[in-house]
Amino acid sequence: MRIAIDAMGGDNAPNAAVKAAQRIAEKYPNDEFLLFGNEEQLTVKLGNDKAENTKIVPTTEMIETGDEPTKAVRRKKDSSLVRAARAVRQGEADALISAGNTGALLTVATIVIGRIRGVDRAAILVDVPNLQRPGQSFSYIDAGANSEAKPKHLHQYALMASRYASDVKGIENPRVGLLNNGAEEEKGTPVTKEAHQLLKNEPAIQFVGNVEARDILNDPADVIVTDGFTGNAVLKTVEGVAMTFAGLLKSAVKDGGVRAKMGGALLYKSLKKQLSGIDVSTLSGGLFFGVKQPVIKAHGNATEDDLARAMEQAISIVESKLYDRLAELLKQQKEEAKNTDE
Amino acid sequence: MRIAIDAMGGDNAPNAAVKAAQRIAEKYPNDEFLLFGNEEQLTVKLGNDKAENTKIVPTTEMIETGDEPTKAVRRKKDSSLVRAARAVRQGEADALISAGNTGALLTVATIVIGRIRGVDRAAILVDVPNLQRPGQSFSYIDAGANSEAKPKHLHQYALMASRYASDVKGIENPRVGLLNNGAEEEKGTPVTKEAHQLLKNEPAIQFVGNVEARDILNDPADVIVTDGFTGNAVLKTVEGVAMTFAGLLKSAVKDGGVRAKMGGALLYKSLKKQLSGIDVSTLSGGLFFGVKQPVIKAHGNATEDDLARAMEQAISIVESKLYDRLAELLKQQKEEAKNTDE
Repeated sequence: MRIAIDAMGGDNAPNAAVKAAQRIAEKYPNDEFLLFGNEEQLTVKLGNDKAENTKIVPTTEMIETGDEPTKAVRRKKDSSLVRAARAVRQGEADALISAGNTGALLTVATIVIGRIRGVDRAAILVDVPNLQRPGQSFSYIDAGANSEAKPKHLHQYALMASRYASDVKGIENPRVGLLNNGAEEEKGTPVTKEAHQLLKNEPAIQFVGNVEARDILNDPADVIVTDGFTGNAVLKTVEGVAMTFAGLLKSAVKDGGVRAKMGGALLYKSLKKQLSGIDVSTLSGGLFFGVKQPVIKAHGNATEDDLARAMEQAISIVESKLYDRLAELLKQQKEEAKNTDE
Repeated sequence: MRIAIDAMGGDNAPNAAVKAAQRIAEKYPNDEFLLFGNEEQLTVKLGNDKAENTKIVPTTEMIETGDEPTKAVRRKKDSSLVRAARAVRQGEADALISAGNTGALLTVATIVIGRIRGVDRAAILVDVPNLQRPGQSFSYIDAGANSEAKPKHLHQYALMASRYASDVKGIENPRVGLLNNGAEEEKGTPVTKEAHQLLKNEPAIQFVGNVEARDILNDPADVIVTDGFTGNAVLKTVEGVAMTFAGLLKSAVKDGGVRAKMGGALLYKSLKKQLSGIDVSTLSGGLFFGVKQPVIKAHGNATEDDLARAMEQAISIVESKLYDRLAELLKQQKEEAKNTDE
């Protein structure tokens, strides 16, 4: 198995990618880790104790965070990202990882690697820590790839994410919920109402109905389906509110005098235990669905640990052969839909 | 001034409404507070020390939380809600307050009281505590009245909420932001992109551009405009995440042994001070805009305090004559738009 890594993407590039690749390469000696990027920089960073199964693939360009995605992908043909994506397309690698420009990654995922038949739009799935079941997570799709979605797109997202939950995460008969502004099936926009009916009548998933945003952290489902605009808004709100509360708590300890400082010290261990289920770093990584090969977006400020986790996630997805089965599943769906139409 | 109160709506009805009305009636001896509801119950609750300026208006029916809004309004003509709304329509009262069924309130607001000319849709405005400026709040519109919005509706929401922020809350030249999935003006759905242009070119407001959900609690604007579906999702997420974190903190203190309990006790005062700016009870009350007279939706489980606050809010809005000016403003806007079209 070979994993293609855009080593130049993200705030901590190329350091974080190089270190993560070295670590994971030692753990998985039979797999190969291809680091795409500036040859000189990567050679220096890898140093003398380079693992045999990490390879440098020299590239001369870089797509920056501020670059306009489509233009950048078209023009910077020798960028680490485009080259890594082409390697996946040409069968020289099995999965792609980048912590760089999200729009550019979405562009190479759909244009260079390509969508699977029967899927109209790629979507980003994010695993969010499940506070009610420490160590577990629920999958949230679409976290922001497409700002608009038709009912049939939400249906496709549900099918793909449900299979991911069962085949990669090992959740038996995953519960699939639809994010909506009310529990009743007649609530919502025309899009969510129609999507509700599609999901309800889909035998391949276990649909548990509408999920309200208020309950999102209370384990309402294993998979939560929504359009990319609402998905982005809700996930970013979770992130923002969590950070705000963490900040308030810190200020309460820091600015509250000796008593508060002592209180904070005494409470620290127990609070840390309560919060152990939450790993905010996983909040903004994402897995692209609807494309032919696994593409993983790590957070822009992903650390070595984050990227190592992304690499292990890539390995387990490639091993599961999930993407091949999804291609098969969606193709069938499309043919069935065609037959029904005729 | 007369305030019409649906005394039978909400979990704590009629107790909370009666007590709140008594309290506020004493504070505002020149205004009148009309309690619509079951005569016997209200008479008992008001008791002997009934303020002279609280009046009972006997009604025989009640709209329940689970009732289908439009049907309930049509059928239960002698319900406390419908009767209170009719009183406002007929000029017997200046504003309407209810803690009951939101859909039914929206229905009476638009059908019985009526929309102002030039406004296509009513919207709910919610004031959210501003954590960066204790005691202040920002206004969030539409919090869920209409699940879909066209660009022109977002434009109308912005105009109305900006005037509310300046004329009632006294914020000079309020900053208006558009909730979107990116800061750049080319980001978003076709609706948010077009709305961005409308707001940017609207001289009557100070548009500060797109606001991302992550920053929503960081004082990005005095008014945040969005459609009711996203608005509901984001506000409910804020509520849900805040409650989850409060729960985790409580568990950390309660289940962490003696050390944690001591820590919690020592930290309590300072934390309470940090959190003093947050009053979650204000989060789910809402003010209907786009209708002819002020309509206030109190939270379903609104307490006496919440309802008293709603009554004072109603008084200050009626006093400001904001709704008359909004009717004038929107009428002008409509005429200008017509002239431009011709």
